[in-house]
This record gives sequence, C-alpha cells and structure tokens, in this order.
Amino acid sequence: MSDHHLNSNHIHTVWDRALPPALEVRPGDTVTLETLDASDGGVARRVVAGELQTPAALEALIRADACPARTGPRGHPLTGPVFVEGAQPGDALKIEMLEIVPAAWGWTGCRPDGIGLLDTALAEEGLQPYTHFWDLRAGGHTEFLPGIRLPLAPFPGVVGVAPAADGPHPTAPPRQVGGNMDIRQLVAGSVLYLPVEVPGALLSVGDLHAAQGDGELSGTGIEMAGQITVRLTLERGAHLETPEFTTPTSGGHSARWHATTGHHPNLMTAARIALRALLRRLQARGLSLEQAYVLSSACVDLKISQVVDAPNYTVSAFLPLDIFVE
Amino acid sequence: MSDHHLNSNHIHTVWDRALPPALEVRPGDTVTLETLDASDGGVARRVVAGELQTPAALEALIRADACPARTGPRGHPLTGPVFVEGAQPGDALKIEMLEIVPAAWGWTGCRPDGIGLLDTALAEEGLQPYTHFWDLRAGGHTEFLPGIRLPLAPFPGVVGVAPAADGPHPTAPPRQVGGNMDIRQLVAGSVLYLPVEVPGALLSVGDLHAAQGDGELSGTGIEMAGQITVRLTLERGAHLETPEFTTPTSGGHSARWHATTGHHPNLMTAARIALRALLRRLQARGLSLEQAYVLSSACVDLKISQVVDAPNYTVSAFLPLDIFVE
Repeated sequence: MSDHHLNSNHIHTVWDRALPPALEVRPGDTVTLETLDASDGGVARRVVAGELQTPAALEALIRADACPARTGPRGHPLTGPVFVEGAQPGDALKIEMLEIVPAAWGWTGCRPDGIGLLDTALAEEGLQPYTHFWDLRAGGHTEFLPGIRLPLAPFPGVVGVAPAADGPHPTAPPRQVGGNMDIRQLVAGSVLYLPVEVPGALLSVGDLHAAQGDGELSGTGIEMAGQITVRLTLERGAHLETPEFTTPTSGGHSARWHATTGHHPNLMTAARIALRALLRRLQARGLSLEQAYVLSSACVDLKISQVVDAPNYTVSAFLPLDIFVE
Repeated sequence: MSDHHLNSNHIHTVWDRALPPALEVRPGDTVTLETLDASDGGVARRVVAGELQTPAALEALIRADACPARTGPRGHPLTGPVFVEGAQPGDALKIEMLEIVPAAWGWTGCRPDGIGLLDTALAEEGLQPYTHFWDLRAGGHTEFLPGIRLPLAPFPGVVGVAPAADGPHPTAPPRQVGGNMDIRQLVAGSVLYLPVEVPGALLSVGDLHAAQGDGELSGTGIEMAGQITVRLTLERGAHLETPEFTTPTSGGHSARWHATTGHHPNLMTAARIALRALLRRLQARGLSLEQAYVLSSACVDLKISQVVDAPNYTVSAFLPLDIFVE
C-alpha cells in the first residue's frame, strides 16, 4: 500500500478514455489530489482584475492565492486521471473519502442567465449577477451575513471515471460513471462505488464544495479549491448499474445510509433508476421483490441531489442502515 | 380556549366547500380527530373475509378492530370538516400538531397495477400484489422481518382545507390548500400553515401513517387508523402561495427546519414552486433576492415528499433554521 500525491498541474477539462494517466496506483493505495475550483481560478482572476467586488478581508485572501491565467477549453478542471492497476470493465471502483481539506475561501454565485433552478423566473423580477465570498479559514462554520452561519461539510462536486464511449465528453452532466453528481453527502467518511467502464478505471476528481444543499439551487455550492485524500480498491464483477455510496451524513434516525443514484433529464425517471438499484440491494439481502418495494416505501428517502447540471439531473434514494439490527 | 373531540363517524371522501361543518371551533381551540385508514377499513375487511393473508398474531389484532362495511364513493376517508370561526380567504390556518396516536396495527402494500413509482417496470419482472402488516403496539419501533426494525414517526398523510372552487374534488392529488401531501415530516411538534380559501377554512384530516420515506415509493406508507390532536389558530392576511411548515424532523445539522412545498405534475416545476416560496421567506428576513438565492443554494435541501399522488407530485424545500444565530 502506497500513498500518492497529485498536484493541480495535472488538470483536464473533459472526460476521455484516451487521456494519458497522470498517476498509476495499486488497489489499496491512497491518493491525495489537489483540486482547483470550478471556475478554474476565473473568479479569483476577476476579483484581482476589479471585475468582481468582495469584502476587503476576503480580497486580501484571494490576492494571496494562485490565479492561474488559463484560457483553455471550458469544463470543470479535474485532477487526474488516476489509473488503478487491474481495474476492468464490470468492476466497481470503491472510493473511500478519507479527508477533504478546504481552501481559505469559497464563492457562491447566481446570474439571471445561468443554470440555476429559478434563473428565468427571477430574471423577470430583476435578478442581478451576484457573487458571495465565504471565509473558510475558521473551519467548522462560515458566516454568510451577521447572524447567519452555515456549517461546513466539504465534498467533491465531481468524482468520476472515464466513460467507455470514445470522448471527449463534457464535464457538466453526471453519467452512469459518476462525474458532476454534486451529491452533498459524499463527505469524509463516505464510500462511493463507481461502475468501471475502461481498463484502469481512470478516476478524476474536482470541483470541491465546502457546503451545499440538496439541489444546488442557484447552480453553485460553496465553490472552492482544496485537497482530497481517497483510498482506492476494487470490487470485482460488481456490475453496478449506477453510482452508489454509503454515508454518515443524511440526517434523521440512522447513523449510516446506503444510497443509490439516478441521473437523467427527467427527475421522475432519475428517481426510478435510483429506486430500482436500491431494490436490488434489498433483494440481495434476501427480501422478495414485493418485500423490498413495500419496505422502501416505508423508509427510503428520495432527495434531489442537483437540478442544475443539464442535461442530467440527479435523484438519490437513501436507505437507513440502522433498520438492520443484529 | 376549548378542547373538542371529533369521532370517525364524521367522515367525508371528497373535498367540497359545500359540505356542512362537523364541528365549529374558535381560534386557539384544540381538536382531537379520530381517523380511519386510507382503505376506509377495506384492508381489514379483506383480511376478515380471508382474501388477504396475514400472520396469526396480527390477524387476531385485526379481528378485534372495527371493520365498517362501507360501500361509499372512493377517496380517502377524512374526518371533518372543522369550521374555524373568523377564518377568511387570504388568512393562513396554523395547525400545531400536538399528538398523534397510532392504531395497534398498520399495513403497507404494493400491486403491479397501482400508483407506485416502479409498478409498471416491476410488473414486467413479475411483481405480485402484496400486503405487509405491521404490529404497532410496542410503539417506538416496529419489526418488518426478524433483523429489520423501523422507527415509528407518525404523521397525517392528508391534512387540508376546502378549495375555493366548487366541488366535489377528489382527495388523491394534493393542492395549494394541502390535502394528500404525504409529507412525512408533519410529525407531532411540527406546525403547518395552509392558505385559507373559504370562510371557516373547513379543515379535514385523515390517512395517518405510522412511518414513511420521502417519496412513498410503492404508493403506501404504514397506513393506519389513529387519533390526532391539533391546535388551530389564524394568521390574518398571510396570503400564502403554497403550504408551509416548520418541523423538528428533517435530520442533519439543524434542530428545526422551515419548509415550503410545491405540488405539480412535473417534479421540476414542483421544485420551482417550493423554492420561490422559500426565497420569499428569506427576503422577509431582509436578504436581497440574490442573497436569498445563493444562500439557498448553499444550504436548502430539496426532498421528494411523494411521487404517487397523481396528478400532483410534491417537492419540499427545507431551510435549516439553526443557521440563524443570535
């Protein structure tokens, strides 16, 4: 078992099985990946150029930060890809989220012509472009305005492996192989399972968020650069239909949850994909199809993970694992 | 302030502003309503008639229960309506959920031709009609199978007031005035606000569930008869667009949440309705439209409350109230 480090010079902005690996690891190895924010430093550059206003204290913070002068293709800047020795199509890549370290600051924005859930409706009410800057240095919590304070719960907005189909593929929509899922429960302590479609899996990660609600309603979470450490192993022949994960963060009556995901232009279809995958998990525990269905009706929670990553939106189905008693 | 009791002889199965009140109360009064299960005793009658199999212990339970031989119109059996003195269109009816007492047993079912999220797909895989019976006498938890135990969190599946439009209206879809919302967070300790559309509001309640997941995936929660006690007051001229509530039950990092709801055939539209109403709550606290929008992106959770009450499905937007610090 080895520990690896991949800095943010290893960036790509599309999914493509033809990309050369930035790193090769063995199952069981850990990797620390440095990641850039979703704007690829663009928000920081606009602040430094005077195009965006931000409170003075944060401005100083941002000036101290790296502002790469990129002009490459648009798309989330992703760190990777990481080639996992022996990974084959049909396997699941198991990604344990060990640690996520936020940057010193983050941002959340809205625009009248963006990807947010209400952009069109609010534009008619006069919505203006707006960027809020968050001071993340204290850790634990961050203040929005005096008297409004949010807890931090950092997670990767984008985590995925290369699709089998020849690329390039844009980074915006999540897919069966993961990607821009924006699932806020993928915090440290969670374990994500992705369907491997190409030899070596080719994992990439990026677009860390310091916090976000289920939905990512204005189109951005608390966007930030940062660093994430994961342990990578393989589950042979798992033949997953869709990404799944376990998480300590859902809330409610269970200490741990198993969730399945659906990614589709239609939210109802996305919900169906997620539920079908979850029923298989219950059937694998020995329940009949009917038992699995009625049990899920009594205790499985559907959450809208994101409604902004067109053309695919994400619904996750959460099973409370505490219902299984010894 | 008076305490009232309404037994389950006061049942109606459609929404209609022309229904005569079963009870008249003053703002500030409490009412205890006895309610029947969603099948109007039909499941119990089928068990007694030998048409449904259930474990022996539960069968004895059910035989001891009342099995009214109803053959009335289909629709949820609702207890009410309750006329609230002085309630006028434009007011909000504030409904404090004080206590919810489950019956001794409940049921959850599925069918290949029902209203569940996957009925059509699972019918192709051979899904059979199935009814699970739950023993609710222990309180706290109920066993599904040995080793699988669910916590009880009882709430009313249907709680609403009469629509302004002349009736009758079917009980299945929820509306702007509430109804069959199937929102599992409406537990004891929560407070629901409904837009009043007719003089007296005409509140009715029914279809209690002992537990349910967000979604009500197979089309039924843990369906049961029971008893619910509420305190009714008025907020004059609140002009709500859609039902809203506060609840201690959402999970996660906040002890209390404020939620808005959207009810629409399209889940994305339902999400937009809920979010727009929630932004108004944030704007009422002094935030600009832009601040409200980006703050909601960072911390508001979209939950799919139900996907089975056609033609309207329900999305709720949950704001964690703990972000507001003194």
